[in-house]
Amino acid sequence: MKNLLIIGAGRSATALINYILDQGKQNNFFITVADADVELAKRKINNHSHGRAIWLDASKANDRRDVIQRHDVVVSLLPPQMHLEVAQDCIVLGKHMVTASYVSKQVFRLGDEARQRALVFMNEMGLDPGIDHMSAMQRINDIRNKGGKITAFYSYTGGLVAPESDDNPWHYKFSWNPRNVVLAGQGTAQFLEDGKLKYIPYRRLFRQYRVIDIPGMGKWEMYANRDSLMYKEAYGLQDVKTLLRGTIRHLGFCDAWNALVRIGLTDGTFPIVDSDQLTYHDLMEAFLGISQHTGSVKDRMAKLIETEPDSEIMQKLEWLGLFSKKRIKINNATPSLILENLLLEKWALQPKDRDMVIMQHVFEYEIGRKKKKLTSTLVMKGDDAEHTAMSKLVGLPLGIFVKLLLQGKLSPTGVNIPIMPEVYEPVLEELQQYGVVFEDIEE
Amino acid sequence: MKNLLIIGAGRSATALINYILDQGKQNNFFITVADADVELAKRKINNHSHGRAIWLDASKANDRRDVIQRHDVVVSLLPPQMHLEVAQDCIVLGKHMVTASYVSKQVFRLGDEARQRALVFMNEMGLDPGIDHMSAMQRINDIRNKGGKITAFYSYTGGLVAPESDDNPWHYKFSWNPRNVVLAGQGTAQFLEDGKLKYIPYRRLFRQYRVIDIPGMGKWEMYANRDSLMYKEAYGLQDVKTLLRGTIRHLGFCDAWNALVRIGLTDGTFPIVDSDQLTYHDLMEAFLGISQHTGSVKDRMAKLIETEPDSEIMQKLEWLGLFSKKRIKINNATPSLILENLLLEKWALQPKDRDMVIMQHVFEYEIGRKKKKLTSTLVMKGDDAEHTAMSKLVGLPLGIFVKLLLQGKLSPTGVNIPIMPEVYEPVLEELQQYGVVFEDIEE
Repeated sequence: MKNLLIIGAGRSATALINYILDQGKQNNFFITVADADVELAKRKINNHSHGRAIWLDASKANDRRDVIQRHDVVVSLLPPQMHLEVAQDCIVLGKHMVTASYVSKQVFRLGDEARQRALVFMNEMGLDPGIDHMSAMQRINDIRNKGGKITAFYSYTGGLVAPESDDNPWHYKFSWNPRNVVLAGQGTAQFLEDGKLKYIPYRRLFRQYRVIDIPGMGKWEMYANRDSLMYKEAYGLQDVKTLLRGTIRHLGFCDAWNALVRIGLTDGTFPIVDSDQLTYHDLMEAFLGISQHTGSVKDRMAKLIETEPDSEIMQKLEWLGLFSKKRIKINNATPSLILENLLLEKWALQPKDRDMVIMQHVFEYEIGRKKKKLTSTLVMKGDDAEHTAMSKLVGLPLGIFVKLLLQGKLSPTGVNIPIMPEVYEPVLEELQQYGVVFEDIEE
Repeated sequence: MKNLLIIGAGRSATALINYILDQGKQNNFFITVADADVELAKRKINNHSHGRAIWLDASKANDRRDVIQRHDVVVSLLPPQMHLEVAQDCIVLGKHMVTASYVSKQVFRLGDEARQRALVFMNEMGLDPGIDHMSAMQRINDIRNKGGKITAFYSYTGGLVAPESDDNPWHYKFSWNPRNVVLAGQGTAQFLEDGKLKYIPYRRLFRQYRVIDIPGMGKWEMYANRDSLMYKEAYGLQDVKTLLRGTIRHLGFCDAWNALVRIGLTDGTFPIVDSDQLTYHDLMEAFLGISQHTGSVKDRMAKLIETEPDSEIMQKLEWLGLFSKKRIKINNATPSLILENLLLEKWALQPKDRDMVIMQHVFEYEIGRKKKKLTSTLVMKGDDAEHTAMSKLVGLPLGIFVKLLLQGKLSPTGVNIPIMPEVYEPVLEELQQYGVVFEDIEE
């Protein structure tokens, strides 16, 4: 029997655990889910004969190593900063390791050691990063194999709410880490367009969005990610003229989010002392800063952010309760934490709500003198607030990869991301059975 | 003979060294200036009989302790992050220590140990912080002693160029750390006005400036500092309704600096790869980001920052050479470092240029039912680019304090800032002999 250890039983674990438990009997897998909240882990295992839940405080090195020692493959769903310690344990103990997180420099440096020990350390094996790498590389290699030369690559992803569950003026609900949504884009976005480097600083990011068309789904907004240039070499796109990765949001989102940025509510760098003594209205008044002393806080705020008091932007702010006299619920919190806390309530998926993930790649390429364009689009909806598209699209690639690894069908040793055909072909093929199908349009 | 050690012979050391050398003979002081650049230290000592220059790499703990051991008082002009180590040495070796820097939390925690050993650790003993504390506290205590109740306190400082040396469209030259000027204000400014907390995030800081009047010097712009609330308790101003500290700039400066912020040039968080292969014009084009494809880079940039191509703001940007086809001189530099490097050249004080420091405090207070206002203003000009007002106003308070300490006339033991009368009264009194005179206007 092969033993798999999953460390972390949180939101992203559900689809992974269910997939591996389903595969357990026929493959003779046994799965251990370790979490500091053992009840949560138990609920996810649900008395399955091929699984068990154990208590683990992953920050305790000795306990962690004892548990890892007894397994063949480790999936770490811990916060990213904890992967390095797990990876070091896996080197010492000779275990394979799989994550859905970005490879840190420190983990990357373990590559030689992992390879020398014939260990597989696969990272970025979720949705974004994960399915984006695999689906893009499959098409990039297809185009190359038929003699095409890629000139432009655009890739956009959005974790959204499905239209049938879209009942708020922001047209957005959380299906993923709220903190990442609130702090998204801080820094300067870098990308390449028409052969030239482009920079968009945070303060202009939600103003300089673009409108894109998703076949069958209409128009959406897209703002640039910080990291477009990161995969240029990994994808073999050194000669491409345009390389732009972005995040998809509903029409109207960016202007309203830009208002929150302008006000200052996404700042996570300083605590507001005694914040639980303030109302949201007080907070808005504080952010008016210098000089405007006539009119209501709402009217003055509209003026500050250069909009009309009854504009759609202001309606969205008002719907959040930012001008209400309700008390802020957390003390000594940063503005961004206060905002996150408010949005968690306002943008929560209700039990029957369905989320939706959209991913789109656009490739412009030349074959001989012909200019071609390939648009490749994935749209997937969740079943409800627990069985989200997001959870499936993160958990299934992890699960399929781990299954193939345990079956001995894959052995990309060293520290990798899933950009090699021997990995992405079987994973993408099996993903299709779960409805993960990209629609390709050639022009 | 009393032995004083000054660690660091840089820009801020000149006035301090000259003052102490002048006082050397009559007081029987001997001064050692230690720097990794021993020639620089030698030039500042200039063969004076009561001084000597030595080589010291202050990061080498053993060397540093050997030197400290042989002195009575240590003035650290090292970068702020190095004060802690020097302070720990001074605790162990039983030496007094003086700095012109903000007290870090770590240094603050050494207070009990210093007091137990009867050691004086005086910090923030320069201009800002330093003379600002002393001159404000003197007036705050005067007002209290005559029965006044302070309701508002405004305090502004600017390190500027004197009008007679002001020959560029920005009306600004560097008399102090350029890096601090380029990165000024990042975060969120916090202050108190009319009993209410106010926040101004960086992205609005240089838009929401105020215009203030300096008696005899006309109108200036003022933007809020991040730290207005920091000294509320130290100054005994817990009940004040308004507390605002700010930085003074020439009229027109803030709008143009805001343009640099909007463009993205003050971002120090990411390196521009191969930046020495780009021209400033290329960099401007990169920062245009998404979408505008017609017209010159200059015209498109004017549009992006919502001004006219021939506006004063654009004239200032053009004067900096931001639209020129000159190569950027530093490689793999962040935007803010590229900007700093450019400004270092453009905003350099020429040998005969005079700098100017303006400091203004405004106190609103009540005596009985009468409302009063006290405006207290210091204007001081330098002699030339080496003997700047900035250097004097940082070095003289340090020197006077150290002299009094060596003479045994002062003994505020523990970790302190100069807010007690026994310190600020004699220091301010002697500063008057050097032209450091505040003009007070009562209304």
